[in-house]
Amino acid sequence: MSAEGLRLYSYWRSSAAYRVRIALNLKGLPYEILPVNLAGNGGEQHSADYAQLNPQELVPTLLDGGRVIRQSMAIIEYLDESYDGETKLLPPTARDRARVRGLAQIVVCDIHPIGNLRVLQYLEREFNTPSVERERWSRHWIREGFEAFESLLAENPATGQFCEGDDPSLADVCLVPQVYNARRWGVDLAEFPTIARIETECLKLPAFERARPENQPDAP
Amino acid sequence: MSAEGLRLYSYWRSSAAYRVRIALNLKGLPYEILPVNLAGNGGEQHSADYAQLNPQELVPTLLDGGRVIRQSMAIIEYLDESYDGETKLLPPTARDRARVRGLAQIVVCDIHPIGNLRVLQYLEREFNTPSVERERWSRHWIREGFEAFESLLAENPATGQFCEGDDPSLADVCLVPQVYNARRWGVDLAEFPTIARIETECLKLPAFERARPENQPDAP
Repeated sequence: MSAEGLRLYSYWRSSAAYRVRIALNLKGLPYEILPVNLAGNGGEQHSADYAQLNPQELVPTLLDGGRVIRQSMAIIEYLDESYDGETKLLPPTARDRARVRGLAQIVVCDIHPIGNLRVLQYLEREFNTPSVERERWSRHWIREGFEAFESLLAENPATGQFCEGDDPSLADVCLVPQVYNARRWGVDLAEFPTIARIETECLKLPAFERARPENQPDAP
Repeated sequence: MSAEGLRLYSYWRSSAAYRVRIALNLKGLPYEILPVNLAGNGGEQHSADYAQLNPQELVPTLLDGGRVIRQSMAIIEYLDESYDGETKLLPPTARDRARVRGLAQIVVCDIHPIGNLRVLQYLEREFNTPSVERERWSRHWIREGFEAFESLLAENPATGQFCEGDDPSLADVCLVPQVYNARRWGVDLAEFPTIARIETECLKLPAFERARPENQPDAP
């Protein structure tokens, strides 16, 4: 299948969109960025047009020609299955895929959604949670998830240059944007040496470098 | 591959464990339940033995012989890939798999983790959030996710007797436990007629029926 017409609704600082940008780059697929300004006046993700496309009013959304794909992990697995590209993001055996997906889901299910913008907005709006407590909240869930992630990396000989062996996979694609978030919230990465080492490896690759928030067309 | 030696660390009322029980039943795979009492004295998920197996200290964990698989979605995809079983939980095309995974991830990423036990415990312990507000919090995230889930079901001709066509899939496996949770928190399901209809269809199947919380060996 050719990759004509891949378009990604993205926000420069959204870590879910960042994941998909890395995946597209690793697979060497050309795509157009359609910026959705989450921080703009009222939040563009809540506009009627975008809500029609993505009723969760969250980024990212991928358009593949006329096809609409939602949810970052579903998008990445779709890309990996539909396009051969330069890199496979999931390993060849069910056993290894389970390890990679399990690592990715620590980030995607158990860290990121709890510290997401809409949750922090709820805490502020409904509970009057002060900003210092919202920051502590964010750090808490990142740290708890990273402790598990770190031990699963450090204790398993399958860990190589990257999370699974010596090629980047879905696990690295999810980890790197979460490390970016961790830094934003002031989590000390010295506690997580394997995570920090793998982030450094990943950011040497142009696919990760080009996907970075600060390299996006909608970055301020 | 034979399914000798599948053992599931489970808690009767955990909706993540409930998902995996449904998947095992739909695939017709025999398994042993190893109960982990999340509500027990201190929470058995925090015991040193269990934390060694699952450093996130969350259920479920699947043992397949000596192999340890963590994270409910990784477990379910592993089972679907490793065992032919009676039913395939993911459809045959990348496009349809993306829809099913996208629906499942609304529940698994954007509803369930935010209302999970450890998050409610944090709100109570750190923010002194009263119980009425914790309940409102839980209902809010369920309702927000279900609004999107309902519209994606209602607007798409791919929706059939179940979320994707006329066979149960990963999307139903994730939806039904979340509906159980919704009821626990007092969400009015009349707002979500397609979700309610599909839940009713699912619970007619013995695979779903046997997986229900009240039918577990560790239910009180």
